[in-house]
Amino acid sequence: MACKYKTLIRRGWSLLRPCSFGRTALQCPRQLCATDIKRITTSWIRTDASHSDISNSTSGKNIFSLRTHSCGELCSTHIGREVTLYGWVQYVRQDLFVILRDFSGLVQILIPQDESKRVLRKTLFELPLESVVMVRGKVQPRPKGQENKAMFTGEIEVHADSLEVINKCRKLPFEIKDFVKKSEALRMQYRYLDLRSSQMQYNLRVRSRLVMKMREYLCNLHGFVDVETPTLFKRTPGGAKEFVVPSGEPGKFYSLPQSPQQFKQLLMVAGIDRYFQMARCYRDEGSKPDRQPEFTQVDIEMSFVDQAGIQALVEGLVQSSWPEDKGAVSTPFPSMSYEEAMRDYGVDKPDTRFAMKLVDVSEAFGNTEIQFLRNALQQSGGCVLAICVPDGSKHLKGKDLEALKETAKTQFNQDVSVVQVRPDGSLKSPLTRLLSDAARLQLLQMAGASAGDLVLLAAGTRDSVRPLLGKLRLQCADQLESHGILLRDPSVFHFLWVVDFPLFLPKEDHPEQLESAHHPFTAPVPEDTHLLYSEPHKVRGQHYDLVLNGCEIGGGSIRIHSASEQRHVLQTILQEDISLLTHLLEALDSGAPPHGGIALGLDRLISIIVGAPSIRDVIAFPKSFRGHDLMSRAPDFVSEEELKPYHIKVTWPEGDK
Amino acid sequence: MACKYKTLIRRGWSLLRPCSFGRTALQCPRQLCATDIKRITTSWIRTDASHSDISNSTSGKNIFSLRTHSCGELCSTHIGREVTLYGWVQYVRQDLFVILRDFSGLVQILIPQDESKRVLRKTLFELPLESVVMVRGKVQPRPKGQENKAMFTGEIEVHADSLEVINKCRKLPFEIKDFVKKSEALRMQYRYLDLRSSQMQYNLRVRSRLVMKMREYLCNLHGFVDVETPTLFKRTPGGAKEFVVPSGEPGKFYSLPQSPQQFKQLLMVAGIDRYFQMARCYRDEGSKPDRQPEFTQVDIEMSFVDQAGIQALVEGLVQSSWPEDKGAVSTPFPSMSYEEAMRDYGVDKPDTRFAMKLVDVSEAFGNTEIQFLRNALQQSGGCVLAICVPDGSKHLKGKDLEALKETAKTQFNQDVSVVQVRPDGSLKSPLTRLLSDAARLQLLQMAGASAGDLVLLAAGTRDSVRPLLGKLRLQCADQLESHGILLRDPSVFHFLWVVDFPLFLPKEDHPEQLESAHHPFTAPVPEDTHLLYSEPHKVRGQHYDLVLNGCEIGGGSIRIHSASEQRHVLQTILQEDISLLTHLLEALDSGAPPHGGIALGLDRLISIIVGAPSIRDVIAFPKSFRGHDLMSRAPDFVSEEELKPYHIKVTWPEGDK
Repeated sequence: MACKYKTLIRRGWSLLRPCSFGRTALQCPRQLCATDIKRITTSWIRTDASHSDISNSTSGKNIFSLRTHSCGELCSTHIGREVTLYGWVQYVRQDLFVILRDFSGLVQILIPQDESKRVLRKTLFELPLESVVMVRGKVQPRPKGQENKAMFTGEIEVHADSLEVINKCRKLPFEIKDFVKKSEALRMQYRYLDLRSSQMQYNLRVRSRLVMKMREYLCNLHGFVDVETPTLFKRTPGGAKEFVVPSGEPGKFYSLPQSPQQFKQLLMVAGIDRYFQMARCYRDEGSKPDRQPEFTQVDIEMSFVDQAGIQALVEGLVQSSWPEDKGAVSTPFPSMSYEEAMRDYGVDKPDTRFAMKLVDVSEAFGNTEIQFLRNALQQSGGCVLAICVPDGSKHLKGKDLEALKETAKTQFNQDVSVVQVRPDGSLKSPLTRLLSDAARLQLLQMAGASAGDLVLLAAGTRDSVRPLLGKLRLQCADQLESHGILLRDPSVFHFLWVVDFPLFLPKEDHPEQLESAHHPFTAPVPEDTHLLYSEPHKVRGQHYDLVLNGCEIGGGSIRIHSASEQRHVLQTILQEDISLLTHLLEALDSGAPPHGGIALGLDRLISIIVGAPSIRDVIAFPKSFRGHDLMSRAPDFVSEEELKPYHIKVTWPEGDK
Repeated sequence: MACKYKTLIRRGWSLLRPCSFGRTALQCPRQLCATDIKRITTSWIRTDASHSDISNSTSGKNIFSLRTHSCGELCSTHIGREVTLYGWVQYVRQDLFVILRDFSGLVQILIPQDESKRVLRKTLFELPLESVVMVRGKVQPRPKGQENKAMFTGEIEVHADSLEVINKCRKLPFEIKDFVKKSEALRMQYRYLDLRSSQMQYNLRVRSRLVMKMREYLCNLHGFVDVETPTLFKRTPGGAKEFVVPSGEPGKFYSLPQSPQQFKQLLMVAGIDRYFQMARCYRDEGSKPDRQPEFTQVDIEMSFVDQAGIQALVEGLVQSSWPEDKGAVSTPFPSMSYEEAMRDYGVDKPDTRFAMKLVDVSEAFGNTEIQFLRNALQQSGGCVLAICVPDGSKHLKGKDLEALKETAKTQFNQDVSVVQVRPDGSLKSPLTRLLSDAARLQLLQMAGASAGDLVLLAAGTRDSVRPLLGKLRLQCADQLESHGILLRDPSVFHFLWVVDFPLFLPKEDHPEQLESAHHPFTAPVPEDTHLLYSEPHKVRGQHYDLVLNGCEIGGGSIRIHSASEQRHVLQTILQEDISLLTHLLEALDSGAPPHGGIALGLDRLISIIVGAPSIRDVIAFPKSFRGHDLMSRAPDFVSEEELKPYHIKVTWPEGDK
């Protein structure tokens, strides 16, 4: 066995790299001192704005490997060093240079021009791009004036002594260049090529690093226990979005859970005190564009904690795991009640990066003669709301305004009135001639509108108008940005807590019945507990959502820990069949501690951080929006024979197969 | 929002605990210096031999919480401190003390005896055990002579000022005491109570900690990228052990993969360079006693690496993550060829903690008149093998010997001859009278047997006798241990690499055809590559198994990176339908780097480390051996209606339902 180590040492792990940890790590990685660990952890990924050099410097990334160095780490401190590199041929330049790429970046290889190396030269220049080669040579400074400052390795080049072709590449369906646009279907089918792009390499590495820092924060700093919970579980009654998994027993199925909610609560009853898991969750939603049938959530639960405690924990978690190249996150995050969010932004996940808030302008129409406004104001909860789009008259064209009206009509079955404020302050709108001068002034003042702005007005009940204007607010922002007005700086991150949600909402089909706004395990806010038994619709829940740039990236609550209260909620208020949750009720009766938690959507969080348009860009092997794996062609047909052990058979729709 | 922090600070996070990181972590956990992190990481779990005090000392385990301290951390340095504790009533002593328990251990609470606290006393002493309470009070030294040295908190007690009952416990199905034996079914049904035992708390925490250290080693020290791969995948043709998951498209199914093998190789083609994942894997094996339908493997793959590199990586991984209370692991691990393992131990995963090796004693029977031995020796590959059980004659009784013969008969359809060496050196065996004195002496000498020992003899072909004696060797060890002879010290850990496996084996039903010994992606050892095209049955694979105390805890290989070689193996040697692996073959043709990896069975590894009899003891919510979740009663019936969207229907066996 000793000879194995001789090989490794002969390969030069410790001798060739004075700043490496090769030898030490070989003997016992534990002996690295804390400062070393810190240095490695913080230095392992270094990106510049273009992501073109994801290069590492001194790290244990070459140990155990056939290479002595990685391409992207070479710089002037390596001059004179003999190196062995392995990588992909990125491109060939002037029949003189090969640009070699590996995970860490690019390096320029100078091909020897002397006659003795003719065969080597020929091999190389005939080699298809993306072939894998090994290069041995010496690091040298580039000739004066030929340095490339935009490249981390731009001060040096490697003068090749020998070169070996390891694996020749066939003609590829697309080039591995960031600027070459590929269709999503092609990217998915050849995902292993798509992942070679520097953007995808960056995305996956940022994800890995962020998850690691979260774990360090939770496990090492705060005593959380990483517990794996089953994904083959019992079906939730009515859990229409749960995949089923046939078992070997006739008629019996497992189910892939949408979250480890029950398990995390049971772990608190079990005295685990602090639990977390990067939990794989499943949701069968058919064809939703930016959803995946399997996704990952940062799942957290704590005992003996209140809402403030969980919020502070999560703020620290986000802050400590945030990628360094994305600037610092400041805490605490601002907080807003559900009522405020709906009132000011018309949505429970406000994008607070820009204003354009909803304003109640009912007062301006107190004595209006405009019929539809009068009607609206006369009904219970009726109001006229407005948003003011700064410079909206200047930038938004007829087509934009039509699109806004179209949205109102098709998605909300409502009308929206457009009021343009001309440069001279006069109004352009079908409503104007019915408005008194006073009302006109009052409207502009209340909406905060001035010359060049655009005011959108909608009237009706509060609950119908708010979501409409909330939606139009975002649509206007998109429109303004499409005209070159930057409203939402992609380098700016706005975190927001939304709290004080109602615990129950009227069921859509049966408004006289209540359903949980989030889930039936959420505890009421203490002041409202007594209302559970008298006016449950008025109870606020100890639920909190975490919103980032207008996307919900997490949600959680303090849970009910009293079995009798839980039974009351399930049985009396929600009218559920509690026999299906016996084990949970028994658990609450067995000395359950007060507890609460949260789940963060990891895929969504990372996609916002890296600025990806879809969560598919931060998942190594995502499914298409129809749930297909385009590379392996899953899901696929399974023979009748193979289904027999599971006692199931396919019911083909008529006319099929 | 600021008020949230005021609450936290008012709660005394920074003021009450001079050695805590409360305040700092609250402001910015990132600002902790490296030494602090080291201190926290290494100190967070401290166990003594009995596991009865899993206590932590100074850590961030109380921040964000309603408590000021955890029970098990209190010691004489806290004397005089006002504390707020939350926990479970473990027991009540002499109507004077309550022993309070939380995740960190136990602490003694002294109940005030003055008249004013009469109600409090009454409440407390009437409270069922395992109820959850809050205690406020002051830490005081125990009176002289009343200290409990066996308990971490044994020098102090908390003099309670106030106490609040948070959640009353019902009568439980069993007591939460380590010495109370419970049936496995009861433990599984009330898993949330079973997990309160100090052993289960220890197991889950050791697991979490070990996984964390593995991640630090892989991610922080060696540049591995943690990549999640899908668990909804395409069914492997003939993958009889794969669960199927019906999709919304008629007749089409996903499959839950047995390992991320294809994905990890594709990630290497994608240039990820170093990948790892704590991967959830699925295997439908019906009712195997110590298997779980879902399990976790430490899944690793590297590019530009050879066998020695992977082995060194894994040795460092195990060494750096090994629990401190289990002693140090020394590396490198010894290595043994498959041929040696079979020859000396009769099995490919030898337990090297004890000797009792197989010995070829054919020579002693060169001229034997014993018919069955003669017959055996005359066939091709025939031999007589023996193992010598030290003191076997002294300890093993008639019943034991019968059991050995029974095993040989029922499991191997073979005979085993028992030779007892009497204290005077004479032999007791049916064979003796047919043995010459010379043969007798030679046998004893070759087998290394002396007075009091037992020799087991079996004859036949090498390939049939080795596994038989390999099995009997282990059975003898069990028998000796049941008689009180310690052969395998539970605190001793023997790691072993087994290498040089054959790449192909004859198919059991069609010995003229070959199948992969492990999987079809394993590369041949370089010296044997040419044999692939002439004598494939002679090719050794670059496969390596990691064995710990006679259990296979991991296996891996260097993979084939040449598309043409992979095609030859699949199509010509294994006669597989390669159309199902088109994507992998295309990937190998697209500039695939040389690569290799390994997968370690995490559940098995942890269970050996903590000395658990079953992997169910290191999994929070395991399935029963029939694959049932006894707590929630999964799998369960699903209505015909709910199956409709998946276009499947149950085929009930006759007479059922």
